Amino acid sequence: MRPAVVLLSGGLDSATVLAMAKQQGFACHAISFDYGQRHLSELEAARRVADALGVASHRTIKVDLRSIGGSALTADIQVPTDRSDDQMGQGVPITYVPARNTIFLSLALGLAEVVNSFDLFVGVNAIDYSGYPDCRQEYLSAFEKLANLATAAGVEGKGQFRIHAPLVQMSKADIIREGTSLGVDYRLTVSCYQADNQGKACGRCDSCQLRKKGFAEAKLPDATHYQ
Amino acid sequence: MRPAVVLLSGGLDSATVLAMAKQQGFACHAISFDYGQRHLSELEAARRVADALGVASHRTIKVDLRSIGGSALTADIQVPTDRSDDQMGQGVPITYVPARNTIFLSLALGLAEVVNSFDLFVGVNAIDYSGYPDCRQEYLSAFEKLANLATAAGVEGKGQFRIHAPLVQMSKADIIREGTSLGVDYRLTVSCYQADNQGKACGRCDSCQLRKKGFAEAKLPDATHYQ
Repeated sequence: MRPAVVLLSGGLDSATVLAMAKQQGFACHAISFDYGQRHLSELEAARRVADALGVASHRTIKVDLRSIGGSALTADIQVPTDRSDDQMGQGVPITYVPARNTIFLSLALGLAEVVNSFDLFVGVNAIDYSGYPDCRQEYLSAFEKLANLATAAGVEGKGQFRIHAPLVQMSKADIIREGTSLGVDYRLTVSCYQADNQGKACGRCDSCQLRKKGFAEAKLPDATHYQ
Repeated sequence: MRPAVVLLSGGLDSATVLAMAKQQGFACHAISFDYGQRHLSELEAARRVADALGVASHRTIKVDLRSIGGSALTADIQVPTDRSDDQMGQGVPITYVPARNTIFLSLALGLAEVVNSFDLFVGVNAIDYSGYPDCRQEYLSAFEKLANLATAAGVEGKGQFRIHAPLVQMSKADIIREGTSLGVDYRLTVSCYQADNQGKACGRCDSCQLRKKGFAEAKLPDATHYQ
């Protein structure tokens, strides 16, 4: 089995991606990040998902983004709630963590070199998302190019790095349908930006709203634990 | 004064870059990384250099690369010593930390967004170096392109990110001459891959050898503290 590195946040999207990577026959090395996020209970969720789906390894890497701040997820800034679709469609929200996907993909790239993998899976999504610049295909293609120049493995010609973002053009409803068909138990996941210690969701932040709408559109029961 | 983010390892190269960025009139936000490196005393050196040259701010960010490993600097692998020039010219050495510059530049990019900077300074060097893939101009150009796609600041058109690598085509002797002319006190810096707690250098690793050769070629006194 070829090894892959899968970014696993503990949310709905990355759980689905892990199931998809496994279905494609990869031995999955999951990587999660303890970055000083408000919603630490997502790390518990990541562990539950990794256990339930089965992985070759799972690491939680500490990286202190609170020292950088600049986001409602990593600084003392309130998470916006009850935003309308129109509001969500306008610009980059305050929950954007500066350069987060670049930081996480870079760390995943380091791990990929160590486990001899050239395949990175990431659950970014440009439809039903929150306006983050680092969730677009154009960005992912630029990272892929960088990865091949940045690494010993890339330069030595042992392989070509590929960034797999199978959700990038899927709606939240499609993602939920796909994951459900692959046996993902979404009760194990936490999407909320301000989930409590038990992983219970606020139901009102952008992430909760997108998740709720996804289950409704997919006509599947939403077993999310709300506060 | 325009703000810049300067990667400051505590070594000779990054101290020189900080002095160059200051001379160009930037208000410098220095960023160092506690990544589980063997030579932790370089972080003390970074603090000394930041104090001596003067910075707008200095952060040391924790990022646990020991959980990833794969390098003599972050795992229980011996640092090679007494390598000849020929040996150093061959391939990527075991002191290469997988994806390190990509990880560090990504974190610097996050900070740049927070301090409203579009100028990142990094002391990478493709001459008199140790064969690292992420020290080449081609790599830096790819990162620059990525930075503009990855960020809110880039996408919103507030500016264009630029990666300044003023040392990339300089020899170690040229770097030392330049820094000396700008008043850098190299006694404050630590280059050794396995410096002891007092910052004393082994004199035998690649980094020590390149530094020693640089001072000799520059015909300047080498005040490095050796063990």
